[in-house]
Amino acid sequence: MPEKSDLGLIGLAVMGENLALNIESKGYSLTVYNRSSEKTERFVSGRAAGKRIRAAYSLKELCGCLSSPRTIMLMVKAGSPVDELINELLPLLDPGDIIIDGGNSHFSDTIRRAGQVEKAGMYYIGVGVSGGEEGALKGPSLMPGGSAAARGRVMPLFEAICAKTPSGEPCCAWVGDNGAGHFVKMVHNGIEYGDMQLICEAYQLMKQHLSMSYAEMHDVFARWNRGRLKSYLIEITRDILGHEEDGESVLDRILDTAGQKGTGKWTAETALDEGVPLTLIGEAVFARCLSAMKEERVVASGRYRFEAPSFTGDRDAAINDIECALYASKIISYAQGYMLMRSSSKTFGWDLDYASTAMMWQGGCIIRSAFLGEIRSAFERDPDLQNLLLDDHFADEIRSLIPGWRRTVAMAVSAGIPAPAFSGALSWFDGWRSERLPADLLQAQRDYFGAHGYERVDRPRGELYHTKWRHEDE
Amino acid sequence: MPEKSDLGLIGLAVMGENLALNIESKGYSLTVYNRSSEKTERFVSGRAAGKRIRAAYSLKELCGCLSSPRTIMLMVKAGSPVDELINELLPLLDPGDIIIDGGNSHFSDTIRRAGQVEKAGMYYIGVGVSGGEEGALKGPSLMPGGSAAARGRVMPLFEAICAKTPSGEPCCAWVGDNGAGHFVKMVHNGIEYGDMQLICEAYQLMKQHLSMSYAEMHDVFARWNRGRLKSYLIEITRDILGHEEDGESVLDRILDTAGQKGTGKWTAETALDEGVPLTLIGEAVFARCLSAMKEERVVASGRYRFEAPSFTGDRDAAINDIECALYASKIISYAQGYMLMRSSSKTFGWDLDYASTAMMWQGGCIIRSAFLGEIRSAFERDPDLQNLLLDDHFADEIRSLIPGWRRTVAMAVSAGIPAPAFSGALSWFDGWRSERLPADLLQAQRDYFGAHGYERVDRPRGELYHTKWRHEDE
Repeated sequence: MPEKSDLGLIGLAVMGENLALNIESKGYSLTVYNRSSEKTERFVSGRAAGKRIRAAYSLKELCGCLSSPRTIMLMVKAGSPVDELINELLPLLDPGDIIIDGGNSHFSDTIRRAGQVEKAGMYYIGVGVSGGEEGALKGPSLMPGGSAAARGRVMPLFEAICAKTPSGEPCCAWVGDNGAGHFVKMVHNGIEYGDMQLICEAYQLMKQHLSMSYAEMHDVFARWNRGRLKSYLIEITRDILGHEEDGESVLDRILDTAGQKGTGKWTAETALDEGVPLTLIGEAVFARCLSAMKEERVVASGRYRFEAPSFTGDRDAAINDIECALYASKIISYAQGYMLMRSSSKTFGWDLDYASTAMMWQGGCIIRSAFLGEIRSAFERDPDLQNLLLDDHFADEIRSLIPGWRRTVAMAVSAGIPAPAFSGALSWFDGWRSERLPADLLQAQRDYFGAHGYERVDRPRGELYHTKWRHEDE
Repeated sequence: MPEKSDLGLIGLAVMGENLALNIESKGYSLTVYNRSSEKTERFVSGRAAGKRIRAAYSLKELCGCLSSPRTIMLMVKAGSPVDELINELLPLLDPGDIIIDGGNSHFSDTIRRAGQVEKAGMYYIGVGVSGGEEGALKGPSLMPGGSAAARGRVMPLFEAICAKTPSGEPCCAWVGDNGAGHFVKMVHNGIEYGDMQLICEAYQLMKQHLSMSYAEMHDVFARWNRGRLKSYLIEITRDILGHEEDGESVLDRILDTAGQKGTGKWTAETALDEGVPLTLIGEAVFARCLSAMKEERVVASGRYRFEAPSFTGDRDAAINDIECALYASKIISYAQGYMLMRSSSKTFGWDLDYASTAMMWQGGCIIRSAFLGEIRSAFERDPDLQNLLLDDHFADEIRSLIPGWRRTVAMAVSAGIPAPAFSGALSWFDGWRSERLPADLLQAQRDYFGAHGYERVDRPRGELYHTKWRHEDE
């Protein structure tokens, strides 16, 4: 009878396989299971050959192969497959066993499942895993949350396999109860949507309005990647712009319709539920939807030709302005993301730590960047910082960026080039820094047609006043 | 034993009372019921005294007072109260009886309830009722949907009590199966959010940047209400701006934090689910959220003072430009709303009629306007019109509005005044009329880090291609 394994892993798609190999390489033994047994056989006799990874061909067999208390990680498609597995596993487990969901589950599902599993006497961990296939193998960013009593047992595993920050710390920290880990992973994905949209807007302005070649844009992104924008996404954009096949850029061949897997949408929906104005990610999600309407756009472009004035200014200055717009809008996007985290932390009782959130994102994941080090420092300086934009460092940055940011948006507006994230971020910032917004009129309208009542500037909050706007009321 | 009543009505808040009085005035007799009997007594002996409205003090008594087959209208708070009433009523009803929900229910609840009630052998109607308390009494806009077999029995009632268009037609038409009526009501409410935000942006530009007095703005809105913007919301804005108490505008006293009841949020969430880029309503909802963060805005305004260049141009020209921005953005907002209706109509199998949707909104409700007559004409000219912006009339309008619209957004950007809906609408329009968007880069990024694959411009849709972006791949 072979020795018991340290860990069970269910689901051998590429992410599951890679994570199993990563875990084994850190000194853990595994038993793996997949619903189709061919896949299991192929893995243990192929990529996992000679390693401490063995196969099980039923959930019962899997549970018999694990040392007690058991730890079983699910790497399966989010949604009903997770629920089905939990329901099949629970009768096979003992109190104190741990189920870990490493898939892309919605945090509200994880909240529900943690309750179900804990009620049965077991522990439940939902861990956000970011970094794609390569990250799973070489070290992902990990955002774990769930049953606090199991924290001490899972954290050594997670810290062993995760990515590291530039200074060598693990990109993993305990996030909070039940769905907190999957929530932070969802916000990460929303921010990723925003970051990608911002780069696309910079690209379109340079390509279409400044008439720059791919080689020239490659050089600009290479330069940006040596400065404050240094990040994985800027780096791969540089590479993409420099990539040629048969002397041609691949970009010219790629259809301009963006796909999405829905996680950006979840972030926007959560923001709507929380009443947090997460405009940039919202615009980024909608920009993908608009890009998908290719046929209608082609028709529309024929109906609404616009002869933009050709660019006659200083091109280098315009490129610098675009960098200002990109960086400023990125700060706004992250400030909005942290606002959402702060709001949800209160709603769900998580007590999130914002410096460690930034730390988890510093390595392994798509949004890793030098910038996240700055965000981490801001929250280390003041863990209770109300808004990223109220930090001294970022306030200085924003002030220096404003002129170029405004010029970039004005340039896009007059050139007829869509820049919904650049311009939306600026509108949001101008609103956020407005002591007085026109909502006085809006409240008057609501009171006029719906007798909703309004609060007054000169009276305590919560007191409602009503005006007899119409003569017939009098 | 008194004669049986034509109709039962449950729920005597102001909307229920007013609707009962409206129905009675059209020749129908009613029996009314309210959970607290004092309210019922007060109504029948007060506002309903001498009318053919009598009281019932239990649901059983109510059902005994109605002629067969019964018609019972619920005017109660949306959510669980509706479900509770349905569950209590079903055992008291007979096959062929009709339950009508006139509350502000989410259309997905109405879809579910229609299934439940039809399964029990009764009919279910969900009707959107718009126009507030006054509309309920004098004639609301009505958007009915539900059990098609009951259509012929409820439409004469609805057509008798509803508002009328300027040319005298009923602002009511059968919308479609199950939740279709409540869906169209939800879109109406989202559009209302957008319309109000647009007016607020015009107001803030005039007040803050053009330094106009309330009296001057009153005159501008009075003028606009005689032109293409003629509508209920412009009219009440004119009245609000002209309203003084003790020689002062009430607006100066109203706290600038907007409330919301969540129906705009529902519209944005539905758009995210459908993948329809409903940016304007999204920005309007988020603008209300931002306005609610008053304390943080006050702090932020101290940190980010912005000395905007004072306005030195031609004020009348600027006002005309603002009117262009308002009208153009309004067209975009409605075009987006109709895109959502077209998409959901397909998803839920409703076969919506867009001309009659516009007709329903021409009277009785908050968004009633001359503009809706133009929209109706567009869909009468071409019921299959793919997008409102592809109609000849609106295309001509938009083309003439573009220069002033762009100047207005540029003015807001340089003056530091938030105009998220004006500028977001322009970004969206510039994206929608772009044959080529920068999503080629976005797809390249997704293929780079996630091996998602991309479609090509020179190959059939659906075929996915992958590039080996990195040397290590090769």
